Formats: sequence, C-alpha cells, structure tokens
Amino acid sequence: MVRVGVVGATGYGGVESVRLLLRHPQVQITYTTSETYRGQKLDEVIPAFRGCTDLVCEAFSLEEAARRCDVVFLARTDAGWSMEVAPKLLELGVRVVDFSADFRLRDPAVYAKWYRKDHTAPHLLDEAAYGIPELWRDAIRGSRLVANPGCYPTSVLLGLAPLLGAGLARDVVVSASSGVSGAGRSKITLDYHFPEVNESMRPYGVQGHRHRPEMEQGMSLLAGRDLRIAFVPHLVPMTRGILSTAFVSLTRPVDQDELDGLYQSFYNGERFVQVLTSGRLPETGSVCGSNNCHIAAVADAHTGRAVVMSAIDNLVKGMAGQAVQNMNLMMGLPEESGLDQPGLYP
Amino acid sequence: MVRVGVVGATGYGGVESVRLLLRHPQVQITYTTSETYRGQKLDEVIPAFRGCTDLVCEAFSLEEAARRCDVVFLARTDAGWSMEVAPKLLELGVRVVDFSADFRLRDPAVYAKWYRKDHTAPHLLDEAAYGIPELWRDAIRGSRLVANPGCYPTSVLLGLAPLLGAGLARDVVVSASSGVSGAGRSKITLDYHFPEVNESMRPYGVQGHRHRPEMEQGMSLLAGRDLRIAFVPHLVPMTRGILSTAFVSLTRPVDQDELDGLYQSFYNGERFVQVLTSGRLPETGSVCGSNNCHIAAVADAHTGRAVVMSAIDNLVKGMAGQAVQNMNLMMGLPEESGLDQPGLYP
Amino acid sequence: MVRVGVVGATGYGGVESVRLLLRHPQVQITYTTSETYRGQKLDEVIPAFRGCTDLVCEAFSLEEAARRCDVVFLARTDAGWSMEVAPKLLELGVRVVDFSADFRLRDPAVYAKWYRKDHTAPHLLDEAAYGIPELWRDAIRGSRLVANPGCYPTSVLLGLAPLLGAGLARDVVVSASSGVSGAGRSKITLDYHFPEVNESMRPYGVQGHRHRPEMEQGMSLLAGRDLRIAFVPHLVPMTRGILSTAFVSLTRPVDQDELDGLYQSFYNGERFVQVLTSGRLPETGSVCGSNNCHIAAVADAHTGRAVVMSAIDNLVKGMAGQAVQNMNLMMGLPEESGLDQPGLYP
Amino acid sequence: MVRVGVVGATGYGGVESVRLLLRHPQVQITYTTSETYRGQKLDEVIPAFRGCTDLVCEAFSLEEAARRCDVVFLARTDAGWSMEVAPKLLELGVRVVDFSADFRLRDPAVYAKWYRKDHTAPHLLDEAAYGIPELWRDAIRGSRLVANPGCYPTSVLLGLAPLLGAGLARDVVVSASSGVSGAGRSKITLDYHFPEVNESMRPYGVQGHRHRPEMEQGMSLLAGRDLRIAFVPHLVPMTRGILSTAFVSLTRPVDQDELDGLYQSFYNGERFVQVLTSGRLPETGSVCGSNNCHIAAVADAHTGRAVVMSAIDNLVKGMAGQAVQNMNLMMGLPEESGLDQPGLYP
Repeated sequence: MVRVGVVGATGYGGVESVRLLLRHPQVQITYTTSETYRGQKLDEVIPAFRGCTDLVCEAFSLEEAARRCDVVFLARTDAGWSMEVAPKLLELGVRVVDFSADFRLRDPAVYAKWYRKDHTAPHLLDEAAYGIPELWRDAIRGSRLVANPGCYPTSVLLGLAPLLGAGLARDVVVSASSGVSGAGRSKITLDYHFPEVNESMRPYGVQGHRHRPEMEQGMSLLAGRDLRIAFVPHLVPMTRGILSTAFVSLTRPVDQDELDGLYQSFYNGERFVQVLTSGRLPETGSVCGSNNCHIAAVADAHTGRAVVMSAIDNLVKGMAGQAVQNMNLMMGLPEESGLDQPGLYP
Repeated sequence: MVRVGVVGATGYGGVESVRLLLRHPQVQITYTTSETYRGQKLDEVIPAFRGCTDLVCEAFSLEEAARRCDVVFLARTDAGWSMEVAPKLLELGVRVVDFSADFRLRDPAVYAKWYRKDHTAPHLLDEAAYGIPELWRDAIRGSRLVANPGCYPTSVLLGLAPLLGAGLARDVVVSASSGVSGAGRSKITLDYHFPEVNESMRPYGVQGHRHRPEMEQGMSLLAGRDLRIAFVPHLVPMTRGILSTAFVSLTRPVDQDELDGLYQSFYNGERFVQVLTSGRLPETGSVCGSNNCHIAAVADAHTGRAVVMSAIDNLVKGMAGQAVQNMNLMMGLPEESGLDQPGLYP
Repeated sequence: MVRVGVVGATGYGGVESVRLLLRHPQVQITYTTSETYRGQKLDEVIPAFRGCTDLVCEAFSLEEAARRCDVVFLARTDAGWSMEVAPKLLELGVRVVDFSADFRLRDPAVYAKWYRKDHTAPHLLDEAAYGIPELWRDAIRGSRLVANPGCYPTSVLLGLAPLLGAGLARDVVVSASSGVSGAGRSKITLDYHFPEVNESMRPYGVQGHRHRPEMEQGMSLLAGRDLRIAFVPHLVPMTRGILSTAFVSLTRPVDQDELDGLYQSFYNGERFVQVLTSGRLPETGSVCGSNNCHIAAVADAHTGRAVVMSAIDNLVKGMAGQAVQNMNLMMGLPEESGLDQPGLYP
Repeated sequence: MVRVGVVGATGYGGVESVRLLLRHPQVQITYTTSETYRGQKLDEVIPAFRGCTDLVCEAFSLEEAARRCDVVFLARTDAGWSMEVAPKLLELGVRVVDFSADFRLRDPAVYAKWYRKDHTAPHLLDEAAYGIPELWRDAIRGSRLVANPGCYPTSVLLGLAPLLGAGLARDVVVSASSGVSGAGRSKITLDYHFPEVNESMRPYGVQGHRHRPEMEQGMSLLAGRDLRIAFVPHLVPMTRGILSTAFVSLTRPVDQDELDGLYQSFYNGERFVQVLTSGRLPETGSVCGSNNCHIAAVADAHTGRAVVMSAIDNLVKGMAGQAVQNMNLMMGLPEESGLDQPGLYP
C-alpha cells in the first residue's frame, strides 16, 4: 500500500483527493492536515465523510509527513508555500504532487511576473513534471515531483493537443466557463456569496488570467513553436465543471472526417479522454464526479476554423483526480487505479 | 460473482443502479434493458458512462432475464408492471428487487385505492420484504422478493423509528422536500421544465400523496399500533436529495440527552445511518451520491415535541443504493459492498 | 411628493426598497446611506441601477435625514441600532419604517431574551405599529413608527390569520423555507458560499429562531389567547422566496368548502393577498419580485387538520414591498402605490 | 392610449410583454391570445399575474385583432406563421412587432435555407425594420412592421457595433451563453428537463445556429462590407440572461483609452446601453428583468484583439422589452416609456 498524505485536506481539492483516495485499492491515507480545523475529526468538518473515515485534521509538519507518507498531495493552492515546502519533502524522500502553480512554469521570470514573488526553488523547475498524463506521461512516470496543472489548462490543452501536434493551429481563441467550486473553500467573499452568483454569469480575469502563461507554455511545447492564446474565463452558477470552447484558425482546410480521425487516433486507448463524434457535444453534467474529459471537434468551414469543446470536472480531472492519476504513474501503479468510477448523473 | 440485471436502465433509478453496481466487487451487470433506447449502447444514451461500460440497452424478456441473471432490479416505476413480471421471474428462479410500489403495501385493497388498479399477485404481498435494512433486516436477508421503498418513506421511517419503537410518538406531522430527480427521466412535462422549477419552491400532493399509506403502514408496524401522518411534500430547485422534517408530539417529556441516547443506541453500528448531535443538523448536500442517512433529533420543550430531521439522496438511499444494500442481504454478501463511497461534496 | 430616505441602501432590503421607490409615483428618494460604500455612486455598487439613478451612498446623519426626508426606511437589520436612532428621528419629525426587530416585540423582556440586549426605547413599543397591513391596517395608518415585520412572520401570520380569527386553531406546526437572500448581503460566511448552499437543503435555528416570539405575539393577538408554534425554518438553494407550510389542528372539523369560504372572505378585496382554491397551490416562483402573497388552505380530514401554504417574496412582501405598503398607509397615499407590478416570471 | 394585442400571450415572450405593457402609461392591452389555454383567464395560466389583470386567453382572429388593436405583438416564434398573418394585419391597418425570424432576413433565399420554407411575403422584407433601436432607430420610427431581433443578435450586434462602425473589426469570434428561458415554454423536451440542465453547461448549434445569418447581415450593414462570424452558443443553468463574449481581431492597434472613448461616444445618451469601464465587467444578474445592455470592451494587446462582453436579459432587451421599445418608436411615444424600471437584483 502506498502511504499518501493530503495537506490542506479541508479545501475542495483536498476533500476531493480524500474522497478518491479512500476508494483507491493500493492507497492508504496516512496523514491529513488542516491549519484551520486542526484537531477536529475530518468527518465533523466535512459531514459527507461521516461513516467513511476516522481521519483527523492535523497540523502540518515536515517530520510527520516524512515519517508517515510515501507521497504527499500539497492541496493548498496559495502561491509560494509549496516552493518552500516541496524541496524539503523531496530531500526527506517524500514524493510530491503539488496543486499550486509553484512548479508549473518552467521560467522563473514568468512565475515572478504572474505571481508577484521570486521563485525560491528554481532548481526544481526542470525536474518537476507537468502533470497531464495523456500529453506528458513519460515525464510523470517515476518522477519525484509533479506540478498538478490548473483546471483551465487541463481542459484547454487536452482539447487543443491533437491540432497543435499536427501543426494545424494557426491562431487560438478560447472562451471557458467554470463552476464556482473553482474559487475554493477558503476565499469567502461577496463575489461567491450565493445570491451574487446564482442566476448570473460573468466573465473575469479578462486582462490576463494566471492560467494564460501556463496554457501558452503547454501549447508551445505541443506545437513546437511559440503560440499565444486569447482567453476569457467565465463564472457560471453551478458547483462543478469546466467547459472550454476553443476557436482554432487552421493552417489548411480540415474537414470533419479528418478532424474526427485526428482526435480519435490521438486519444486512442486513453481511459480518461472520450472523443465525441457524429454531432454529439460535451456537457459538464456528463463528467461530474469522474476523471473523464469529453471532447468534440467540429469543422467550421464557414470561417476556416475548428471549434473544439472540452468538458471536465474541475475538481477531478481538473485537480484531485488528475493528481491521483499522476501519483499512480509516479508510484508505478495502474494509471486508472481509484479512478474507474462513472460520473454522478444526474 | 452475482449476476445482476437492471430493467429500465436509462431512468434515473436505473442509471444510479448501474453506477453503483459497476463498482460492486461481487457483482457483474449482465443485462440492461430499455424499451425507449433499445439497441443503443448505454454510454451513448447516458454519456456519464462513457469509458466505463460496454453495456447495451436491450429489450426486456423473461427468458433472457432468467438465463443471464441471479437477481433483477425492476427499476421501472410505473405502477402495475412489476406485479405482472415479478411472479414470473420468481418462478424462473430469479430474485427480484422491485423499485415500484407494487409489493410495498401489505393490503391489496389499499393498493387498489391508491394506485387505481386491482393487485394481480396478492399472494406475494406477504412474502415480499419491505426493504429498509436498518428496520427490517431479518426479513430481507435471504428473501426472493424485496419491495424497495419509496424515497419519502425511507427518510421518514428512518427518522421516526427510534421514537416509534420506544412508544414515544403520539402524533406525527412531516414536511418533506425533494430534488427534481425524484420525478424521473421519462415524465417530461411543463412541471419539471427548467424555468418552471428553477428559483421556485412548491408543495404538491397535499390532498394525499401515494407515499402516505406506505409510511403509515411502516409507522404502525414500528409502533405496534395504528398511526396517522400529516404529510406534505415539496419540490425544491435542486437535482438530488430529500430532507424530511418531522414534528412528533410525545407521550411524555423527553429531553435532549434522552433523545440523543435513544437515537445513538438505535442506530449504533449501522454503517449507513449517522446520528448528528450537539446542534449539528443534516443537509442534503452532505449525503449527495452516498447511501447515507443523516439524522438529528431535537427536543422542543417549548411545544412538547421532538423535531426529527433526516437527509438522504433520493436516488441512493432513497432508491438504487438501498436496492444494492437489499440485494447484498438477499444474496448473503456484505451489506455495505459496493456502497462504501463517501458522498460527492461539494 | 413624499421625500424618502433609505438607510442601509446597499443591503438586499435597501436595494429592493430603492428599486420599488424609484418607480413610486408619489415618492422621491432624497437620501441613501451606506457606511461600507460611502461616497460611491449607488449604481456603481449595484450595477442593476445603472441608467436608473444618480443617487450616491452617503454617511448617515440625523441632521441630514431630518432635513431631507419625510420618512426614513431603516434598512439596516442589525439588532440595537434602530432603537438608538429611531427615537431621535421621531423627535426631529421624521417618520420611520424600521426593518430591524427593535420595535416588533411589545414586551421588552422578550426582546432582551432573544436579542441579548436591553431595550433602550421601551416607551415606543406601544406606539410602534406592527406592519402587516392586511391584519393591522388601522394601527399603521397615519402612524409615526412602523415595525416592519420579519419575512417568516409575514408569510406565517397571513397564512394563519383567518383560522386564528375564527377561533379554529388549536395547535400550530410550521415548516418554512427561505431563499438565501434572506441572509443578507453583508454576512459573508462559509454558510452562504455558493458551493455550500447550491444543491443542498438544510434546516437551521431549530432550537429557537428569533422570529418565533414575533409569530407567537401575532398569533396570540389574532386568536385572542396565548398560542405557541412549533417552527422550523430551512434554507433552500434559490435567491428569493419564502414558502411556509402550516399544519393546524382544528378545534372542530372544517371541510374544504368552509375553508375556502373563510379564506376568500377574510382576504376579500385585498390587493396583495390571493387565495388559491380548486387544488391550486402556491409556489414562490409566482410571487418573485411582487408584493403578493399566495395562500392555499387545504382540509386534511385524514388527520383533522388544515394545511395552509403561503408563498411570498422575502425581499418584497417579506421586507421592502411591505415597507412601501406601510409607508403608503402612514402618509395617506393609496396603499398599492408603487407596488402594482406583476412578479417576474419565469 | 395605444391599444396593443399580444398574440401568444402564454409563452415566455408573451408573458414578459404583458408584464411590461401592464405598466406602460400610454398603453392598454386589449387582446391576448393563446391557442393552448383558450378561454382561460390569463392569471390562472400564469399565476404571477394574479391580482394584476383580468385578461383572458382568446383565440386569434384577424378581425378581432383589427377591431381591437392599434399594434399587435406576434409573440409566437414558430417560423412561418407570421409571414402568413402579418401581411393581413398590415392590410387591416394594424401595425406589427413580430417576434419570429420571418422578417429579419433581407434575402428570402437565406430565409429559405435556414428555416426550410419559402418566404410567402418577400415584398415586405424591405419594408420591415430590423428592430434594434440603438442601431437603426430611424428605420423603426413610424414604421408599420418591425422584425424584433433574436436575443443573441441583439447582444452581439450591440457589442460589436462601435468597432464595426469604425472599420476596426477584421475578424470576429463570439462565444455566447443563454439562460434556459430562451428555449421557450412550449418546447418541453428532455433537453430542458430540470435535472438535465441543472448543474451542467453545454454548447449547441455549433454546426450553424439560425441566428448566425441574422448576425452577419447586421454586422455587414454596420461595417459596410461582408463579414463572417464564428459563433458558438451555450446553455447555462439559469433562467434568464445572455452573455456574449466577442473576440475581435483589429485592423490596427487600439489601446484601452481609445476603446473606452469609442464605446462611450457611440452609446452616449442611450438610455438602455451602459458602457462599463475601469475594469468593470458585465454580468447577466445585473440586467435581469430590465431592458438594459451592459457592455465592456477590453483591449487585449497580447493578441491584438478587443474583447467585447455584453449582457442582456434575453426576455427583455432580447425580446419583449425591445419589442416595447420598438413599439414606442413606431407609435411616436417616448422611447423609454414602460421600460424605466431597474433590474431585479439579487
């Protein structure tokens, strides 16, 4: 059994990690931390866990983590904390799946620009694997440190990868929408107060969302050349789910058959990516609670574009589920272990 | 491996049964039927199943059911169909968990009154076990035919049972609320059209809901004497969940400590019922997707009542999850098999 | 033109007051205050007002209020503030509609018990009119100080009044549910964070909600004798609306015809109360945005009760709309002035 | 008083028309029709109207319309019906605001292609004014026949017009999202069943939505040259609201100041279009129930685009409110008459 710790176990990403790991046949959760709820039983803080676990919210300590865990999920997402802690955990022989952005960007200058602090562990940026297994599986397998990607980048890069890899993308515009759980459980502001969000849809971060450099880094890697993205995220009155709609100008005309073939062969054999064809389109309700990503690519001859839509659950494939998938690869477990459940519908 | 068939696999109760059974370690789903979607792959009808199953929607036939199944879930809920089919399945040696009301009421006259048709298999009414395991486990264990209870009766009877069993209930008033999935997937009317339901709450069935005789039958069994219930259900703009609030006049004063003790000892050791104390109250969001029932009983000295609140997921403990729990008991499997997952939160 | 001030104009009750008063043909809003947003234009704080008003959020001052207003809506709902301010406003010749609970309870000891502070203006408790016009119109007409009722008491008392007045109510149990706007705009906690509320229903305040003494005071006045209420409020994932379901044990059998007659004659001629008959039931979606209260009373011969359901918009008939109605009566304006609009449906 | 008839008064667009017209100071609603609810009182079909009107659902007849109305709102939206009826109404001297697409497209061949029927009144296509007053006010003023625009085209064209008029738009990509009321009240299918829509977001019509030719016609008129649009609409789990996000490649670099100036001067003095600046972004919750359109244009130097976001209420500015605005212009009434109310927030 792999011994896993979840640091920040009472945030939405931590809770979802615990939910998935409790059912993982090769994992034992040995350590759960929460500074806010320190000392309380996890199932008293999160009543959905009643009857399922005796775990307790503990304070975080490097020593305890090292003593009790083979892998630690750093599910705190505040920038800067992971780059202090992860190097020490690695030194102590603990592997790390980091949910924050600290190890996602290869270039420390880009990190500093977008997160407004200098990177304190730049020597690990090359080692850290960027954790989208369908795209960079080899780098993740066996690695010590995985930068778990942002939820938007996961949905966008999975959607674009076949076009980028085939050299077909000339220009990329993405409109994406997220459920409110993406804002987390600790940032309690008027912005996410129920009556403010309910029955309303709004864009945000139009002047530059922090996930943009992460997406452009991935796009450029996949395309083999620098690419920019016009990206607008929106908040939608639902709890879970990200839907990304990409409008991709093509370097040459591509018809629907070629598009279908390209996507189907690119994701052939992938357990967690389903390519929809024949007019079927993804919806977030169909991936709620599962690690799946549903993708449809539609040829728009009218404007010479491909329209690529992808749906994920932001807390699963966009966060905790992908973290489990990454951990499976890091530890040599079957990649789908603990993740083989259908989504919750309706 | 127990071979299970799900008849009516594309309704919400059937889908939820498939979702749970796919993860059940001692079960293989061998037969899924749907008249509406006959011939289509289940994961094309229900995209949440993509990547999880190759099951196909077949037409229902007694012979196929008998040949391929040890147990059949009759997840069609239209009154009258099960009482035709279940007797034949039993004759062919197939056990039945019936989701309809056909075998819930002991008295065929009561059935005829509320469902407006004569019962065609009254000889099975005594044999059929009423499937709330926490209350009637012995009758369910090893039985051939289980009447899977209604969602409201499950939540109400679990909430009332300790008071009824102790002879403390004098008069019972219940206000309950359900998410819209309780209306099913095939009854598509203006009543459940999104803009009509969204942002609105409404009572219904005030003149007499079909679940009332079912609740009164259970209450009377538990109390050992005839009891009536004043019951009003409501529709709430959410997909899953039932919250029942019972106001119980007591035969003698009962304080909070006695109430807590009564409920805790009644449900001591139960895997799927959690008693909340110390001011904690149930909420449906904490049992979404799980087979749990959260109950809190509060002493209301002001009016000499106990107020008992219980929350379940109408599609799990209120339907498919309880069906799996019943099947486990029928087949001698561990009762919690396939049901050990936490709810989906948030 | 009546000059009206709205103190606390950026809370939900204040915003709704401004919305209604902007359309009131005999009113001019002359003063809007907000400590939080002091100095900002109201339509920048509340974008729904863009293009509709040039009002500015000012600091509150007694002098300004007295100089610029004939009536002031005290739309701050924190207990204790109004009982300091209202007496001074009255002295300066300004009439007051108070949204807080400070002047609702006739007995200062009851106030002290439930709001945990001594009343500092007990001499005004007799003068203050309790503002449900359909029940206490004469006391409101021409008064200087109106205690605008709580949202639950409004829906419950309107529902119960005909039975109470006829001496038919023996025992009263009420289960009520509210949309989340009832929690206000300034109390930003995890409890009302979108992912915590959405897709979940929960009871609260079971041990004793502050609206209980207010309801019992009103019930006793209407019945002419002391009455208690068993009351449980619930939070429902919608923005606006209160639905109250009252189960009333009757002093003698009452059939549906008598019930219909009683309610229709009691509310005959009332512009803002509609009695539904013939099986029609109220729903909150049908009163959203309007000052209407929809009521249906159903005879439950099975348990010897009447079930009375009433629906209001908690921010209109439950707050700002009723305040306008009260102000109209205080100032001798037509009672329905500014309130003649249909609800927003869907 | 202008005498107005609403044909199709029980659909969402008809209901919203009645709601607005009931408050219109220069209008009397003299005729409401509904084939489905023929003979019933309107306030029994639509309980939100209780206490507000005695109108009755009548059958439609040309003679009655001509006898009782100066203007008729054809609020039935099924393609083909209006082009039969409108010519006859005009002949009888009744003016028409048509909610369907029958008179929106100038070219009958385009109509035939997208709506799959030949146009039977092509001689009226030139006469019919396309009813977005802010863009084509002069054509609407005094006209006999107005084609009330689609909801998506209204939001998109208002958002793009300043850029198009200034010759700055080179290429246009629009991602738009709508609440479910856009699907209407008579098309009751699984697609809009509450549990299918709730907590899910999905694209639709990707291969070509019928509003595309309407948008391109408007864009080309405004730009003075042919323009195409890449357009994807989405369905969002809310009742009202359209948010459109347009990514516009520019013919030359435009900074934020120039963009702000361009939009502010273009919409200077418009009562129903508010330009947001200084980082403020539109949200649908802020225009719910009002005839307003909130627009923000953001310079995206990173990709050389302008991102233009616009929010409307699909049933008001996107349908019934704009119809009233058009009628005001047709009849020489003040343009804002009956439309001066703030939105409903929250």
